[in-house]
Amino acid sequence: MREIEVVDIKKAILSENDDVAVEIREQLNNQGVFMINLMASPGAGKTSLVLKTIEALKGEYSLGVIEGDIDSLVDAEKVSALGVPTVQLHTGGACHLDAPMIEASLTKFDLAGLDCLIIENIGNLVCPAEFDTGSHLKVMISSVPEGDDKVLKYPLMFSVCDALIVNKIDYLPDPGFDLEIFSQRVRNLNPHIEILPLSCRNGQGVDDWVNWLKQRRQTAFLP
Amino acid sequence: MREIEVVDIKKAILSENDDVAVEIREQLNNQGVFMINLMASPGAGKTSLVLKTIEALKGEYSLGVIEGDIDSLVDAEKVSALGVPTVQLHTGGACHLDAPMIEASLTKFDLAGLDCLIIENIGNLVCPAEFDTGSHLKVMISSVPEGDDKVLKYPLMFSVCDALIVNKIDYLPDPGFDLEIFSQRVRNLNPHIEILPLSCRNGQGVDDWVNWLKQRRQTAFLP
Repeated sequence: MREIEVVDIKKAILSENDDVAVEIREQLNNQGVFMINLMASPGAGKTSLVLKTIEALKGEYSLGVIEGDIDSLVDAEKVSALGVPTVQLHTGGACHLDAPMIEASLTKFDLAGLDCLIIENIGNLVCPAEFDTGSHLKVMISSVPEGDDKVLKYPLMFSVCDALIVNKIDYLPDPGFDLEIFSQRVRNLNPHIEILPLSCRNGQGVDDWVNWLKQRRQTAFLP
Repeated sequence: MREIEVVDIKKAILSENDDVAVEIREQLNNQGVFMINLMASPGAGKTSLVLKTIEALKGEYSLGVIEGDIDSLVDAEKVSALGVPTVQLHTGGACHLDAPMIEASLTKFDLAGLDCLIIENIGNLVCPAEFDTGSHLKVMISSVPEGDDKVLKYPLMFSVCDALIVNKIDYLPDPGFDLEIFSQRVRNLNPHIEILPLSCRNGQGVDDWVNWLKQRRQTAFLP
């Protein structure tokens, strides 16, 4: 009985969530703002990737960042220090961001002046995969030290994403991570995913990611 | 309104959960079974630690393992290959284990023949921290490549645990991880936590963890 109750509530929440997500995407399309939802385990490198992306797109794109965190400001402070408009979302105990939370934070931005918004989701490979936040793209990071079996254990996240960033390739070679085996496992689940190996620490591969992002934004807003 | 609904449901679930957890602990005490709830991010080394612990306690303790996973068998197969009774809990999409799930899996073990049960929780630093599973100890793993700021971002997990294993110390020195700063941040939140640095890969420090575990079991069941 307990389980059935929980599942019903979840379904109702997901359906409400999806309605809000559709509205958000319409609003962003009208304003020409391209939004990506960045998801990963704790410590995989979400904030580092946000900082590298800001650096690479400086002067070309006007960016904004939505920082999801349970209760600290550490990530928001790092991003804001680069002069990028940042909204910190404190979720209390919630382990994911949903569309209503994103809708509330959008009111804090001057959307007309933005080209791209990055959501840094809560560090979690489970629940964030289930919630459409209204973004145009879902991007996940998996990092070399986490091991190449994560795709077997958190399949939904790998299935729903448009791109998979493989961060911390500066740790390679590593006996727990075979990039070829890992990529094959991921493509078995999600044949169309873009796999982008890089290192936020030494910068290797960051250009490929940024070029892919720019291309996807251009395609989305083709007249 | 949405948020208030969700919080009420959560409170009701947590209260039901805690009642079941108390019953589980009584049952385990009657049988002399010491249970630990092992929690961590994906890829921090939960399964590796379970395997190392089994190896170290072989012939001394009779062990059982409850493997929480969303839908694979990879961890349970590794553990079971060592001849240890293993129950695989498939949670579907749930991002944590709760006391009713543990209660159901306990019926699959011959408890009278066990000294110690290890729960390998879902890889997640958020929700598992909120649920008492009926274990005697809560133990978390944080790994060097995750960075030393995780304690600021997932404070509840670090606050509720009895021990913190710092895994992958074979990656040290690492510019993103200062063990002294990390330990200080953890102790500011939780002064009584036992901090145990180790490497499942090369075995360094594993004895300290196993000795601590044995001591805690003996203390719990003193006549």
